[in-house]
Amino acid sequence: MNTPTNNRTAPIGIFDSGVGGLTVLKEILELLPFENIVYFGDVGRTPYGGRSKEIITQFTKQDISFLAEQKVKFIICACNTASSTALEEVQKGSEIEIIGVIEPGAKAAVEKTKNGKIGIIGTVATINSNAYASYIHSLEPQLKVFSLACPLFVPLVEEGYIDKEATYLIARDYLQTMKDVSIDTLVLGCTHYPLLKEVIGDIMGDAVTLLDSGEETAKESFRRITTSGLLHPYSSQVPAPEGELKYFVSDVPEKFSSVASRFMGKEVTNITRVDISKY
Amino acid sequence: MNTPTNNRTAPIGIFDSGVGGLTVLKEILELLPFENIVYFGDVGRTPYGGRSKEIITQFTKQDISFLAEQKVKFIICACNTASSTALEEVQKGSEIEIIGVIEPGAKAAVEKTKNGKIGIIGTVATINSNAYASYIHSLEPQLKVFSLACPLFVPLVEEGYIDKEATYLIARDYLQTMKDVSIDTLVLGCTHYPLLKEVIGDIMGDAVTLLDSGEETAKESFRRITTSGLLHPYSSQVPAPEGELKYFVSDVPEKFSSVASRFMGKEVTNITRVDISKY
Repeated sequence: MNTPTNNRTAPIGIFDSGVGGLTVLKEILELLPFENIVYFGDVGRTPYGGRSKEIITQFTKQDISFLAEQKVKFIICACNTASSTALEEVQKGSEIEIIGVIEPGAKAAVEKTKNGKIGIIGTVATINSNAYASYIHSLEPQLKVFSLACPLFVPLVEEGYIDKEATYLIARDYLQTMKDVSIDTLVLGCTHYPLLKEVIGDIMGDAVTLLDSGEETAKESFRRITTSGLLHPYSSQVPAPEGELKYFVSDVPEKFSSVASRFMGKEVTNITRVDISKY
Repeated sequence: MNTPTNNRTAPIGIFDSGVGGLTVLKEILELLPFENIVYFGDVGRTPYGGRSKEIITQFTKQDISFLAEQKVKFIICACNTASSTALEEVQKGSEIEIIGVIEPGAKAAVEKTKNGKIGIIGTVATINSNAYASYIHSLEPQLKVFSLACPLFVPLVEEGYIDKEATYLIARDYLQTMKDVSIDTLVLGCTHYPLLKEVIGDIMGDAVTLLDSGEETAKESFRRITTSGLLHPYSSQVPAPEGELKYFVSDVPEKFSSVASRFMGKEVTNITRVDISKY
């Protein structure tokens, strides 16, 4: 099923382990409002971050297989855990171009750092994969990369524990080693983390640049879709008609609807449930 | 497949959304050391607590279907979320006796309270189900029940954030309303929560009794297995030979092994992976 389509009107597929990828979707909608988009959120099996490479790979294959069935022309893996842990293997078997969030985030860090010390924070699986450090070293072997798992950040964000003393205490615990080694660039290697940008920024101080991998990935996707001639024909119309946006989730739509509406800043209704274990 | 067995040598099946049910297993091993036991931990899809009733029911059916295939004589659903949300429906279709953690925990609370005010804490799904309050009211309609979801407790426990200032702050936030309404009995309605017993006890004060549903369920299981004539023949031997204990999980065994060894206080090795989506 996973065959390429040169149909420029075909949708772009975006998937994530849950709702975090909506930050990438939002960025894509700003850059490519005329594209049709299919978003899949694996909310029925979220979070991926603490699971094994083996099962993350199985889940990621199923997510992509579902998007391939939707005849997408380009796939964005908006999940850092899936990107770092499973994407290399999954890309091999795919004829549709798939972009992950690691390389764009890593590239931006390499461009940004001045003192050559980069910090990476993410889920346990993302950090264990060493994907950010490997890619950074393939670009600039002399850079120093410090990687750190912050497993409580995802549940804190999901519970809305953003501007709370407890969150500051936990973030201070986690980030102290990053301060000790004097990084000047910190990659937020999980789509949930940008929601803690203020807390993390306060702790790290103004001298440290925070990079959002999702934001970088949206920009890189825009470039690749444009250069590969896959841009929707509407892109040349002024004003360009708006594309169609469909959401698919692996649990009931109601809960996703309320979180997604908050994320997207408007009511999200076009949501269909899919039994992802069948893919 | 889900047919009863009167084979007294058949194993007892225990399942949980992950590792939390090991606290119940430990209790069962103390009471029934001569029984054969099959433990299933759905670590590949944990946690259940934030998911919908629909998907929790689907997962629970699969967990039970797997245990039925193992020809167990009795099933303990050690997960509060599954017990409160899915068990009533699942029990209907089962010829094997299945016990959940709600009724034993609720019964103990009814027996314990003196001022008639009981607090229940658990996951979002457990609290939304209203299962504890319903069952308590079926026993004693005049009792007052206050239910509260504490979604950050599970990740805090799983990250070993037990004796930390941040955990105290979050617990104080959560439990303030329970203090305000002057409960005298608090049911720890999630198998992870007993690990926070000290923090919760400090905040609630000595006048409040904390009840562990898992512990109560182990005792109730012991009674039921005994009275239904399903006790292993070894029970009458002195000394009774030790039963066999097999672990099954839905992600790779390695990670479960290290957590389970910590929980059980000895090395846990007999772990087999199962693809639970096939059940």
